[in-house]
Amino acid sequence: MPENRTEISELGEFGLIERLNQDVILRNPSTLKGIGDDAAVIEAGDHVKVVTTDLLIEGVHFDLSYAPLTHVGFKAVAVNVSDIAAMNAIPTQITVSIALSNRFSVEAVEDLYAGINAACEHYGVDLVGGDTTASRGGLVISVTAIGEAQKDQVSYRSGAKVNDILCVTGDLGSALIGLQILEREKQVYLANPDMKPDLEKYDVVTGRQLKPDARMDIIHELREMDIVPTSMMDVSDGLASEIFHICKASNVGALIYEDKLPIDKQTFDTAVELNLDPITCVLNGGEDYELLFTIDQKDFAKLEKHPDIHFIGHMTKAEEGKFLVTKSGTAVQLKAQGWKHF
Amino acid sequence: MPENRTEISELGEFGLIERLNQDVILRNPSTLKGIGDDAAVIEAGDHVKVVTTDLLIEGVHFDLSYAPLTHVGFKAVAVNVSDIAAMNAIPTQITVSIALSNRFSVEAVEDLYAGINAACEHYGVDLVGGDTTASRGGLVISVTAIGEAQKDQVSYRSGAKVNDILCVTGDLGSALIGLQILEREKQVYLANPDMKPDLEKYDVVTGRQLKPDARMDIIHELREMDIVPTSMMDVSDGLASEIFHICKASNVGALIYEDKLPIDKQTFDTAVELNLDPITCVLNGGEDYELLFTIDQKDFAKLEKHPDIHFIGHMTKAEEGKFLVTKSGTAVQLKAQGWKHF
Repeated sequence: MPENRTEISELGEFGLIERLNQDVILRNPSTLKGIGDDAAVIEAGDHVKVVTTDLLIEGVHFDLSYAPLTHVGFKAVAVNVSDIAAMNAIPTQITVSIALSNRFSVEAVEDLYAGINAACEHYGVDLVGGDTTASRGGLVISVTAIGEAQKDQVSYRSGAKVNDILCVTGDLGSALIGLQILEREKQVYLANPDMKPDLEKYDVVTGRQLKPDARMDIIHELREMDIVPTSMMDVSDGLASEIFHICKASNVGALIYEDKLPIDKQTFDTAVELNLDPITCVLNGGEDYELLFTIDQKDFAKLEKHPDIHFIGHMTKAEEGKFLVTKSGTAVQLKAQGWKHF
Repeated sequence: MPENRTEISELGEFGLIERLNQDVILRNPSTLKGIGDDAAVIEAGDHVKVVTTDLLIEGVHFDLSYAPLTHVGFKAVAVNVSDIAAMNAIPTQITVSIALSNRFSVEAVEDLYAGINAACEHYGVDLVGGDTTASRGGLVISVTAIGEAQKDQVSYRSGAKVNDILCVTGDLGSALIGLQILEREKQVYLANPDMKPDLEKYDVVTGRQLKPDARMDIIHELREMDIVPTSMMDVSDGLASEIFHICKASNVGALIYEDKLPIDKQTFDTAVELNLDPITCVLNGGEDYELLFTIDQKDFAKLEKHPDIHFIGHMTKAEEGKFLVTKSGTAVQLKAQGWKHF
């Protein structure tokens, strides 16, 4: 038995990753960026490949009592494509490995792959490999996505500069609210199986939770407008947490404005119904899969009228910290609560 | 509920994969080879990248009651590197995702990564990314490996020609025998925890099961000798099964000779002790991670004296079938039993 036993919960997911990464040594000159961004960056002749991977575990990342397998398959691809988008790259290939128990029929696996194939078509990626094996527990899905970009097109987390404008796409907090609704209706159903869940009025939020869409549309538009974000990442753990990542990697601070934060009306109303603070949901809700990025001020005019890009603040000097200016004009320190799996 | 329910066991792993692959469409010109070889092949400017992935599940692929976590970590990398080797490529990067329950301490995870890092050093690859998450069940490890090669250096399963010589590295069957011994000693221990397992005399076979080594040494030697195998794959599911794969992909037959099949002395003796037929172990044992490849006859002289490459037969016309010539001179039809997870 080991002399010391440190619980993983003491370190948290980020703490554990940081500790494990201490011993990583990069040996290949083709490795342009290893751990620490949305994807790794690898030299590939005249361009670069970006590589990312995500593991989805039944009971942790999805609940088959309300998530259809086709949606789970689609989402497994979308969350990886979102990481490729976050590097300002175009996804090209994926591998998909699954582990499943004999609880799953061939037809169920086909439903899962119908979702995977639909996502491949939607994002224009090729399913090129994988592994299929038995599981002693629930369904496990591991997806690796590969994308490509020109070397000078890649947006890292580390490129934000003081006075860059902080932008976010779409709206935030919906996926978290969708999860709350799905969990509530599941409990209602478990307590009384005759009760039919009424999910119609929650279609936006549940849709954002069950079948998120990676924002490749934005990446293609940025290319057409010849804009390379100075830094970028996707919002998977919550806006505040992601702002902290960019600030740390870029050695800058940030000032954001409450009245600029985008929230969908159904998300807002449902948050109120659930007695949740909508702004807290926007700041700390996970799984939005929107893009958070910074642009040089010279690019602002090109994006100013974009209907789905919101300018929520700007970057400051690192020593000025990270603050949210509330609607009443008070500056409060941002806290990164993030999304905890452990 | 679906109207039909087909059990996965009715199709088997290969049948399921074949069925799922029917719906896969390749859209990107950069995808040179998708599903169906040891790794996918992707265009990368002046060279190609090869990509492979493997999922290792506790209780299916490893048993922590006798496999130390450092060995599990090393093996998770080695089996992926073996697939890169099987394409005649050099591994350069890996990603590693893990799912773990709170049964694992930080120190246990560090042991696992000590093995992963040792394998990275041994094979000269960089750990460039991954995902860490909670698991409801046992430990799950998903590794994706990336390698590189010149386009004309890649060895596919499909390139074997009639009269090519069939070669295999090292020896076969040891990992299967090692597994039998480890399982036997586990049962002895479970029945009587005071019994200390005596594994010393089984060091070779248990070592081959717990910490296999991918044959990158052979790949480097082949390059130095300027030999590109006409076809290649690694022996992970059993020699006979792999010969079937090469024959199918290359549309050829095969004739192999029992007296040419390489088996280690300890493996032979232990097989006999366990009342197993050594040749059956060589033909159908899994997880050997040796290389099976074909060469053009013109390259034979260069390899003839290699101490660790065995010439076990040659390729024939497809209609001549797949046969094993026994020591007594009888030709018997080869059967691919392979390694079944379902």
